Amino acid sequence: MLKGHQSWIFESKPTIISSAAVGGPFEGNGALSNDFDIITEDLWLGQDSYEKAEKVMLEHACNRAIEKANLQKEDINFFFSGDLMNQIITSSFAARTLAIPYLGIFGACSSSMEGLALAAQLIESKAAKYVLTSASSHNAAAEKQFRYPTDYGVQRPPTAQWTVTGAGAAVLAESGNGPKVTSATIGRVVDMGISDPYNVGAAMAPAAVDTIEAHFRDLGIDATHYDLIATGDLAKVGHEIANALFKKHKINMPEDIFTDCGLLIYSKDQPSFCGGSGCACSATVTYGHLLNRMRKGELKKILVVATGALMSPISFQQKESIPCVAHAVSIEM
Amino acid sequence: MLKGHQSWIFESKPTIISSAAVGGPFEGNGALSNDFDIITEDLWLGQDSYEKAEKVMLEHACNRAIEKANLQKEDINFFFSGDLMNQIITSSFAARTLAIPYLGIFGACSSSMEGLALAAQLIESKAAKYVLTSASSHNAAAEKQFRYPTDYGVQRPPTAQWTVTGAGAAVLAESGNGPKVTSATIGRVVDMGISDPYNVGAAMAPAAVDTIEAHFRDLGIDATHYDLIATGDLAKVGHEIANALFKKHKINMPEDIFTDCGLLIYSKDQPSFCGGSGCACSATVTYGHLLNRMRKGELKKILVVATGALMSPISFQQKESIPCVAHAVSIEM
Repeated sequence: MLKGHQSWIFESKPTIISSAAVGGPFEGNGALSNDFDIITEDLWLGQDSYEKAEKVMLEHACNRAIEKANLQKEDINFFFSGDLMNQIITSSFAARTLAIPYLGIFGACSSSMEGLALAAQLIESKAAKYVLTSASSHNAAAEKQFRYPTDYGVQRPPTAQWTVTGAGAAVLAESGNGPKVTSATIGRVVDMGISDPYNVGAAMAPAAVDTIEAHFRDLGIDATHYDLIATGDLAKVGHEIANALFKKHKINMPEDIFTDCGLLIYSKDQPSFCGGSGCACSATVTYGHLLNRMRKGELKKILVVATGALMSPISFQQKESIPCVAHAVSIEM
Repeated sequence: MLKGHQSWIFESKPTIISSAAVGGPFEGNGALSNDFDIITEDLWLGQDSYEKAEKVMLEHACNRAIEKANLQKEDINFFFSGDLMNQIITSSFAARTLAIPYLGIFGACSSSMEGLALAAQLIESKAAKYVLTSASSHNAAAEKQFRYPTDYGVQRPPTAQWTVTGAGAAVLAESGNGPKVTSATIGRVVDMGISDPYNVGAAMAPAAVDTIEAHFRDLGIDATHYDLIATGDLAKVGHEIANALFKKHKINMPEDIFTDCGLLIYSKDQPSFCGGSGCACSATVTYGHLLNRMRKGELKKILVVATGALMSPISFQQKESIPCVAHAVSIEM
């Protein structure tokens, strides 16, 4: 049901009956290594390209989520998926393997929550019995496409973030055991004029703040409604900017509940520069770590605000700035 | 409401209260020139790149649709859009201009009906008052990205199709005057092993047939339920293959109701090779020509089956075949 201008309240509380997270070797050595269902030994997964490796990783996450839900893929009505590759080939090729009716989405790193919001919407309106939603990214595939192949060893500035190698997936149903999706806010595109692809955290922070403010306004709540509010991949620079914007806009955002998936995923001794990024950042941290904490009873109400930088190498070369978007989904145990 | 395994019945019959189609100069000289709201004089629209020109074209289509609905953009709750550019920059940059909460989608040339199905779903479930949905493509931008820049003058084989330069948009609401969206079928990805990007019609035909069969099965109807069934961009080669597949599967598909947007858009004396293709093919033919025919009373029940080839230049170079998908939406007057 529409609430305010851009939010949905899910009265039936669609249930995340299972979720799975797959991580690469760098993620497996990170701060959340225990929350991954599968940690791969290398970046290749037995494939001859990074793009194909990402596809296999996404298939692993989807298959594991379906298996944990005690379902067969034939039981799933619809499959939402998004990734960073041109023409989201990771998602489309995984959809070919899974053979589940497929709705491709693109919101860059906000794809995880765009998919979860739409999946919950389908369950809420009885347009599906089971929906699978997923998102993925691969460090070497993304760097090659958006910046430079990692083999070049190009020096990165300190504002750079580390694209997460991984995939996250979740199965939603009308009822069952598990965390419930209770509301969602779809973001508008915000662009403050930043054009540096090595500083996407700063570019995305205003979009995250815009969506969180809209969420509070539409639902008539404030930050204290939640135990935890996690943005997707603002990382260190973007997180500080978001905090400053909340202060400027006089929005209360207590430091102890406001965090970012890109700040959580790696350990401090890992050379991740500003922190994690990529579709898999919010997808693996949410579908692994955060939902695990909810299942253990450590968190009751969370808001995940996945952030996306909607540029392409062509738009960058044509001197465009970076339009950004953020979608928020609230989950309750 | 879910019907069968992969279809939705829209009991509230969401209304397409307005629609608009923008075409380039080649389309303006085509068979459906009278059905475009705007025909541009050249491929540039005053911009310094084809990508920026496509964005302006999409903005024109969206603004015209909003204007024809007697609405302001602030009235629209959500904006679905998809296109062929890497990271769907056309849609995302138009979403920046429009500032409407934005859900990016990607289904290649099936994006038009993916957007219309999801938009109708949001209206049906009272998750939105007004939804804008659109899709676009630009011949020179798409050829440059997927094949060769048009300036090279590369010789094209007879199976090639002509990517439509244009954009189509529609505004949906709970009620009002206009054609109603009554059902939709979301397709699975089908890949019969074709890898030639100059023969996408042949690659997509099995996906179109798979979705149409699922639509008939889920709804318990056959082809005679409709006055017209139009695929998106199978064009000449793909249309013949689809006809052969229906015969092989013993599905009745009368020749006089089965057509293709790619066969309709250009006149016979235009050098379009096999016919039209691109996201704008089904988007402009549906939101311009077909809805105009419905408004005139010439057609009462139609099924639009937009077809998408989900490959990228990278997947082609890595010797992958072309996964295809098709989404069907039924519209009644």
